[in-house]
Amino acid sequence: MNLIKSYKSYVSIALASVFLLSSSTPSTAAPLSQINEGFAKNVIIMIPDGMSHPGVTLTRWVYNDGHPLHMDELATGLIMTHNSDTAIADSAPAGTAMATGFKTQDKLIGVKPSVSTLVGARNVDEEQHFSPAASILEAAKFNGKSIGIIATSEIQHATPADFSSHAIHRSLYTQIGEQQVYQNMDVVFGGGRNFLLPDINGSKDPSSKTRIDGENMQEAIKELGYDFITNKNEMINSSSKKIWGAFTPMAMSKDLVRSDDEPSLAEMTKKAIEVLSENKDGFFLMIEGSQIDWAAHGNQTIGLISEIKAFDDAVGEALKFAKSNKDTLLIVASDHGNGGISIGDISTTKSYPEHSMEYFTSVLKKAKITEEKASTLINSERSNVKEVMSQLGINDLTDEEELVIVSAKGKYEDGKEFDNTLNEISKLVNKKSKIGWTTGGHTGEDVVLYVYASSWDNTLTGTIQNSDIALYAAKAFGIDLDGITEKLFVSSSRLSSLGFNCNIDESDETNVVLVATKKGRTFRFPENKNYMIENGIEKDFNGISVFNGKDFYIPQEAVDLMNK
Amino acid sequence: MNLIKSYKSYVSIALASVFLLSSSTPSTAAPLSQINEGFAKNVIIMIPDGMSHPGVTLTRWVYNDGHPLHMDELATGLIMTHNSDTAIADSAPAGTAMATGFKTQDKLIGVKPSVSTLVGARNVDEEQHFSPAASILEAAKFNGKSIGIIATSEIQHATPADFSSHAIHRSLYTQIGEQQVYQNMDVVFGGGRNFLLPDINGSKDPSSKTRIDGENMQEAIKELGYDFITNKNEMINSSSKKIWGAFTPMAMSKDLVRSDDEPSLAEMTKKAIEVLSENKDGFFLMIEGSQIDWAAHGNQTIGLISEIKAFDDAVGEALKFAKSNKDTLLIVASDHGNGGISIGDISTTKSYPEHSMEYFTSVLKKAKITEEKASTLINSERSNVKEVMSQLGINDLTDEEELVIVSAKGKYEDGKEFDNTLNEISKLVNKKSKIGWTTGGHTGEDVVLYVYASSWDNTLTGTIQNSDIALYAAKAFGIDLDGITEKLFVSSSRLSSLGFNCNIDESDETNVVLVATKKGRTFRFPENKNYMIENGIEKDFNGISVFNGKDFYIPQEAVDLMNK
Repeated sequence: MNLIKSYKSYVSIALASVFLLSSSTPSTAAPLSQINEGFAKNVIIMIPDGMSHPGVTLTRWVYNDGHPLHMDELATGLIMTHNSDTAIADSAPAGTAMATGFKTQDKLIGVKPSVSTLVGARNVDEEQHFSPAASILEAAKFNGKSIGIIATSEIQHATPADFSSHAIHRSLYTQIGEQQVYQNMDVVFGGGRNFLLPDINGSKDPSSKTRIDGENMQEAIKELGYDFITNKNEMINSSSKKIWGAFTPMAMSKDLVRSDDEPSLAEMTKKAIEVLSENKDGFFLMIEGSQIDWAAHGNQTIGLISEIKAFDDAVGEALKFAKSNKDTLLIVASDHGNGGISIGDISTTKSYPEHSMEYFTSVLKKAKITEEKASTLINSERSNVKEVMSQLGINDLTDEEELVIVSAKGKYEDGKEFDNTLNEISKLVNKKSKIGWTTGGHTGEDVVLYVYASSWDNTLTGTIQNSDIALYAAKAFGIDLDGITEKLFVSSSRLSSLGFNCNIDESDETNVVLVATKKGRTFRFPENKNYMIENGIEKDFNGISVFNGKDFYIPQEAVDLMNK
Repeated sequence: MNLIKSYKSYVSIALASVFLLSSSTPSTAAPLSQINEGFAKNVIIMIPDGMSHPGVTLTRWVYNDGHPLHMDELATGLIMTHNSDTAIADSAPAGTAMATGFKTQDKLIGVKPSVSTLVGARNVDEEQHFSPAASILEAAKFNGKSIGIIATSEIQHATPADFSSHAIHRSLYTQIGEQQVYQNMDVVFGGGRNFLLPDINGSKDPSSKTRIDGENMQEAIKELGYDFITNKNEMINSSSKKIWGAFTPMAMSKDLVRSDDEPSLAEMTKKAIEVLSENKDGFFLMIEGSQIDWAAHGNQTIGLISEIKAFDDAVGEALKFAKSNKDTLLIVASDHGNGGISIGDISTTKSYPEHSMEYFTSVLKKAKITEEKASTLINSERSNVKEVMSQLGINDLTDEEELVIVSAKGKYEDGKEFDNTLNEISKLVNKKSKIGWTTGGHTGEDVVLYVYASSWDNTLTGTIQNSDIALYAAKAFGIDLDGITEKLFVSSSRLSSLGFNCNIDESDETNVVLVATKKGRTFRFPENKNYMIENGIEKDFNGISVFNGKDFYIPQEAVDLMNK
């Protein structure tokens, strides 16, 4: 468990630095204070991961001839994306901010920061460092609403994890995945089926792409009453009120090359809303267009815009529901920029005013597959490059360009292999389409805030903090997130002051157990679950147990159960 | 007059293509239709030229430690910037769209397009191609309001020209400058004093940086009753109701290196509002942060963010007025993206989550001068590079980096000189600050819409067309722009049908004259002026005469005068 060990030392180091750096600044943009309390029964948050705005403009031109995308009419402001302590966000801290109202630090999933130096970051007392903060999803469930998450990544990936779990590192899929199972969500759609199963060799290596605690979550899901489904038809035909769709072993496919076995993001959105909206007390749903970000990392323009289009189709589904159910708040908000994309590149520095729209869009409009897919279609002789490029919309491949792709894979003189095929294909598409990119990493600019609310005066505008998204959703529901956090996460330190004798049993590092004793009774809380064990008997509670490597947290309801 | 001749053939060619391409699409985003008619007495449009949004985020971090800029709270949507026929806008057509409500073609100033192929572009009948479209500034004057323009470029530059003149090419400063003088504006602040004077050698070369028609506009300005001023003190002390400030021979200085003789954009804004707001019927004011665009073209990050800051200070002045005068609509809208700037570059592809804010901002925060200024401070021996770089905030210049700057100027073997100093300095600042750029030209992404209106239901949101800016301002005023166009621009063709015998006298190409005769009376209309001559006697009218190389236009008031 070296990985877990290293997180523990990470926690310690971060703790040590807290007295050096600390500042507190209000996170609420002015308009949020003017929003009415409790105006929405349903909230849908849609996150196009890593979507810098120029990609949206390009998507509109390529797939819609410049006519509005679904999200366009919802643009109402901007979002600052920085972390509590650093400039450029990754999905884990950015999603945490949007889910919990706390800007936090890199890698952290749904837990509070130890360092809050930048504007908009709430200061956190030392004993609260790395403690779980209730997400708007958890708060909605606590208030009797149905809840769901959808992603096209593996469902244990950072953004869906931020809404449905608490962990001190985004890579802790075993913890994250288990918490998701015991969160009692009503709808879960995404990839990552492999991460629901124990390693067949019993591996405890976190990089094994399986569960390292030996537990079978697919069985658990079924036992918890879910309709566990693995393809689109099963999804469409399911009449269950609790559905868990794990459509692919790892991430789902990019929309442009998706087989009909996998549902589209729009289809998942539609189904989820159908199921969740049956609750008369309302629902919360988080939907992530996960792979917009991945395409941006690779500077893959076709991958990017086709994923944005698939995401926008899902926005269309959500918007249709919101427009006919006015008690619904729909928020669309990316978590950070990515790639530094621009329409126009170094070759258009002087000529930019002259070019027709087709000059930028003609290849992209003709593309039938993603750059990624193209890179897999080139045969071992590398004799079909021209043919594959034509599927990407490139029909004027020069011999020189062909040679670049052909020789992008091979062996160095020392026998070591290299393969830059995908990178060279992406560069070629960009060159042909005059699309500029500055980086393969995330970028620090504000992203666009999109809102559909029942009325103008409940529509958030201006330039807000990412953490305001959670506060806005909570206000729409009339929910106090801090209050819910207190009710869902009582620390083992606090239990001690309540007369419990607490011992955190880390003998199996992958299945840590809180052992609480009081007046001769002993209660065992396995981490990441919604039950405790007394005398071999399981007692369920609402909420989940969380261990952050330092402290163990259980819901107040569990405390009350022990006192009964 | 080869330049003018070539524009005429440009017009002919464009005319020929009209029957091939034409489409009509509504230009109004849904929310515009919900805005109340006539809710504002005053409208201020502020244009940060060529401002891609990442520059705003960076400005906020460098100068405000991430705390809100004045414009931040006003973000309410997005603006599509494309032309009527091409993908990436230049200032001339983009400003025309924002001033008149017509998307148009490259180079055109305040005139309608001949080709309207892209979404959002109004289709224009053939006889209206290249005809003047009334600007919101002209419409405001027509309705008895005071009007003004402010720019930090020469005032004849594309964006201020778009609001105050009509020309078939942005470079026609002689026409543009003359129309501005006779528009009867109340406040004009900017650079470009040279372009108010005739060439001392009588040059008729449009590139002579002077007037090519032999006319002295400085004298004309004074005769028209303006307080003609040339420095900041004169501006502050002027008590005139008509002020023409021409502060510099060419463009004004960048704010960071501005001498105290020149007013800041914020100071000009404050003074203009003071003067214009004396009119009880209200005012219209256009304010351009002209050189944001120029810095972006050069990928000069310090120049860019210091100009954005100066612009934002001006927004602060306008916002202060709007907040205490609720009948004021304030719109802040860039005309197009530029440069493809990002916070994060190729060097942060892997490391982006780790970096402190200072990693990106420390050089920029220390910079005391712009890149441009720095390039002029390097001595001929190039021995003071280290010293100059330290004024740019760079205190860790390596020998290698110094050598790049030292050797950026010199002679090729053939004796030809080169000077890449400014470019190399800009690249160095970007490398030190991890700021990426993709191009030296404009870019095609949507820009941010900022609005401050009296109430939420009069605040435009969503993703709009640039041409909607003019329609929004007109709606706020309760003005019909098309109706004003009909009243301000009656064509000579139309005059013929009204019984006038018309002859366009082009014997002096720089002073074209419409000669209209009817019932034995002869009226001479010199182009670009607000008067006609009958029997040697000048008769003034409201509005200006415009010649577009094809047709001559005069206001209906002038027609009425002739019929008297």
